[in-house]
Amino acid sequence: MASITAIDPSTNAFDGDCTGRIVLDQLTSRWGFLILVALRDGEHRFFELRNRIHGVSEKMLSQTLRGLTGSGLVERHVIPTVPPAVSYTLTDLGRSAAEPLAGVFDWLSDHAAEIAEHQQ
Amino acid sequence: MASITAIDPSTNAFDGDCTGRIVLDQLTSRWGFLILVALRDGEHRFFELRNRIHGVSEKMLSQTLRGLTGSGLVERHVIPTVPPAVSYTLTDLGRSAAEPLAGVFDWLSDHAAEIAEHQQ
Repeated sequence: MASITAIDPSTNAFDGDCTGRIVLDQLTSRWGFLILVALRDGEHRFFELRNRIHGVSEKMLSQTLRGLTGSGLVERHVIPTVPPAVSYTLTDLGRSAAEPLAGVFDWLSDHAAEIAEHQQ
Repeated sequence: MASITAIDPSTNAFDGDCTGRIVLDQLTSRWGFLILVALRDGEHRFFELRNRIHGVSEKMLSQTLRGLTGSGLVERHVIPTVPPAVSYTLTDLGRSAAEPLAGVFDWLSDHAAEIAEHQQ
């Protein structure tokens, strides 16, 4: 693993001006994070993502999906049914991002109860 | 690694009402994420964190540190100098959270340039 201080400053998320910071916000936005983790299972239609990720509005979901697509992490597919359906998959880049995010998700699942105790 | 669907619903971050969602927001808030990754190196004084994490205001930094301390992820130490100094370290729980977050940080460092190309 690269040491933090050895990282090229242009891609160091500690630096406020870099691409790293923009991408950090995308990966770690609540919805971006949950979408990328959900898509690890494979293709999802828009409404499947909406149902799976409780509390996300259709507006936030489509806005976040647009951002993730624009960053090359997610691919949008139009299925030529009547009416046409839209589905989403991870790109190779998105899959490589989803791996470490899933590590965070798993940590969360294992430790949420412990943290809830601390908070009380 | 636990499958998403096999996770106890009470700790599943896909579910909007659970502790997992609250902790997710804490871990993946921009500042929470960067603080936990920065503290992997060891103890940091407040001003060291402020200088390292570009763009964070003192207000946001102290607010985020308070949240992380309340969740048992970070420990606050008062050093009895004149004037007293305050430093922060990861708890064991925080260290276990910082591991997968560092995986995300490393991914970011490796792929930020590639994503910047997609965005253009």
